[in-house]
Amino acid sequence: PKKSVAVLPGDGIGPEVVSAALDAVEKLDLPLEFRFGDIGWDCWREEGDPVPQRTWKLLEETDTCLLGAITSKPVRETEAELAPSLRGTGLQYVSPVLQLRQRLGLYANIRPVTDLDGGRFDFTVIRENTEGLYAGIDVHGLDEPLWNAVRHHPNAAASGPEDTSLTLRLQTRHGIDRLLRFGFAHAEAHGKRLLTVADKPMVLRNSSNLLRERLELIAQEHPDTEAEILNVDAVALWMVRRPERFGVLVAENMFGDILSDLGAGVMGGLGLAPSGNIGDHGSYFEPVHGSAPGMVGKDRANPMAMLLTISQMLGHLGLDVPGEELRNAVRTVARARKTVTYDLGGTSGTREVARAVADRLEEG
Amino acid sequence: PKKSVAVLPGDGIGPEVVSAALDAVEKLDLPLEFRFGDIGWDCWREEGDPVPQRTWKLLEETDTCLLGAITSKPVRETEAELAPSLRGTGLQYVSPVLQLRQRLGLYANIRPVTDLDGGRFDFTVIRENTEGLYAGIDVHGLDEPLWNAVRHHPNAAASGPEDTSLTLRLQTRHGIDRLLRFGFAHAEAHGKRLLTVADKPMVLRNSSNLLRERLELIAQEHPDTEAEILNVDAVALWMVRRPERFGVLVAENMFGDILSDLGAGVMGGLGLAPSGNIGDHGSYFEPVHGSAPGMVGKDRANPMAMLLTISQMLGHLGLDVPGEELRNAVRTVARARKTVTYDLGGTSGTREVARAVADRLEEG
Ligand SMILES: CC(C)[C@H](C(=O)O)[C@@H](O)C(=O)O
Ligand SMILES: CC(C)[C@H](C(=O)O)[C@@H](O)C(=O)O
Repeated sequence: PKKSVAVLPGDGIGPEVVSAALDAVEKLDLPLEFRFGDIGWDCWREEGDPVPQRTWKLLEETDTCLLGAITSKPVRETEAELAPSLRGTGLQYVSPVLQLRQRLGLYANIRPVTDLDGGRFDFTVIRENTEGLYAGIDVHGLDEPLWNAVRHHPNAAASGPEDTSLTLRLQTRHGIDRLLRFGFAHAEAHGKRLLTVADKPMVLRNSSNLLRERLELIAQEHPDTEAEILNVDAVALWMVRRPERFGVLVAENMFGDILSDLGAGVMGGLGLAPSGNIGDHGSYFEPVHGSAPGMVGKDRANPMAMLLTISQMLGHLGLDVPGEELRNAVRTVARARKTVTYDLGGTSGTREVARAVADRLEEG
Repeated sequence: PKKSVAVLPGDGIGPEVVSAALDAVEKLDLPLEFRFGDIGWDCWREEGDPVPQRTWKLLEETDTCLLGAITSKPVRETEAELAPSLRGTGLQYVSPVLQLRQRLGLYANIRPVTDLDGGRFDFTVIRENTEGLYAGIDVHGLDEPLWNAVRHHPNAAASGPEDTSLTLRLQTRHGIDRLLRFGFAHAEAHGKRLLTVADKPMVLRNSSNLLRERLELIAQEHPDTEAEILNVDAVALWMVRRPERFGVLVAENMFGDILSDLGAGVMGGLGLAPSGNIGDHGSYFEPVHGSAPGMVGKDRANPMAMLLTISQMLGHLGLDVPGEELRNAVRTVARARKTVTYDLGGTSGTREVARAVADRLEEG
């Protein structure tokens, strides 16, 4: 039976990139049914939720999801964007990607960092998606119990509870175990011999003990993969200086957020960066780039990140052969530097690049 | 009257790098008295504190401090290193750099990121040093009040209080205000027109409000400097792709830790990265590199980071002219790529490079 993919084109350049990329992969004759749905800014504006009920239903009925892009705006500007009839009703904007990750329990955010040009490096950042500093426990102005936890700190004492903010970095055995197991499995499936965990044990002495203990335990189940803990600052440095040293790089939510965007930088920019968000009962795939409102309708955006995202999704659906074919076609076009968009130094448009990839698929 | 500098050579390559660098700057005939003191691993081992009392006294008696390098080891290995008579006494190793920053209130960690080769970029990361995620409130196993703050989170519920860890990211009006004021003053003193604050307002909605409110207020006192808040992940990406866009980059302790090491990577490695830690009543200066135990006594370490650190210190002491002279001499030698250490692709030793810089000082 055909697998099904919910396609949520989203905001800004999302729709035109999705459309160009899906046209290009038609050549692969994929055994997939694509079902389109709504997400993003228009849904917030008109319906009061960037992820409407019908979209959750679509996600339930499909095997995975392909997401275009979502426009980021400062939260304090979101209410003013609502349709007049919805204003003042207490509706709160919550980023759709956070909603997807949390509600579907997509704890592993997989971002491959690959040297498209020379094959000099090829590793994967696996970012935890459900806990860590982005667990959602963040307050400005402290009540008694939280104030008691920090009142001894000189800066807190000098500021008082109203002028103090706290964000809680939550780490749990449950969250750490499933992330590490996922990381080792990914390493084994992709022939990587080194799993690096980014942490800061010199400073975060106690929380890092939980992580280290779990790593030591779980590493025993995976004797073929070497495991190490590196300081997160050193990881950032080495990603720039010696990216080839990494195999699989596992990190807490916020460390992983920073390191994976850094990975996009190392790779040559957001135009080439795919990602997948995966849990035990669901998944969605999205290019790392944003919705680039200033670029809409100009046929300028690089579709390669979306094409590589589709390739990553195909691998996840067990369609490894067409996934690989697609990735190779993108690489060939990117390396040739002939038909590429402005961000790779070229002058081609979105559709032209997508077509060049499609042409490679036919030849291949 | 001569100003005085406490020189703490520290561990590993620290002493040989300090000695080569101080020899080189003799040519500048600086109006400074250098007073040597002890810090680091040997002090921990033999005296039970990596920063002994006599060193605190020296720091009180001097105008600033030059630090070599300190060996980092996992905290759990520290007790076994103690002299037998000190073991089991409950002594706890605390990183000397954290001790210096906390006890002397050195809230601003200044790390210039400069393109030594082409002058393509030149900005400064100013990292908060006393609060944020590294404020020291970090627990593994939660008591009642902290557990209540997180028990609703599914991962916490699935793990229980003993298997949950929390790190508190503390931000205060006191800490934010002095950091931002320092940042604006630094921008003005160095002719920078843009101050970027790295934060994550889409996710850390409440704590980021405190930061934004204080920034909007304090920015009004500095109409000549443009101020912006950027997502920390985007900052990491842009530091790699377009470092020239930054002027002064201000960040919370842990964001700043990652971004400043990333800056060292962008600059060409730790061999070129200086830093200063500055508060209202004290300061110390150190190269960003570590103590490189494997390199001790081999005359291999790059002394340029230390020479640039001394240059930064001279500026802080009001000795701008020799500071500039020294920086220019280092740049000239680095750019020529003739007398440079292995990390810059050369074959010269520590002392040879330091002498080459000294020769430039004579000529200049
Ligand atoms: C939009 C934002 C909430 C999101 C995140 O940080 O998780 C994005 O930056 C990402 O990295 O996918
Ligand atoms: C040694 C460590 C505690 C320190 C830090 O992270 O503050 C170091 O990495 C630095 O960046 O100066």
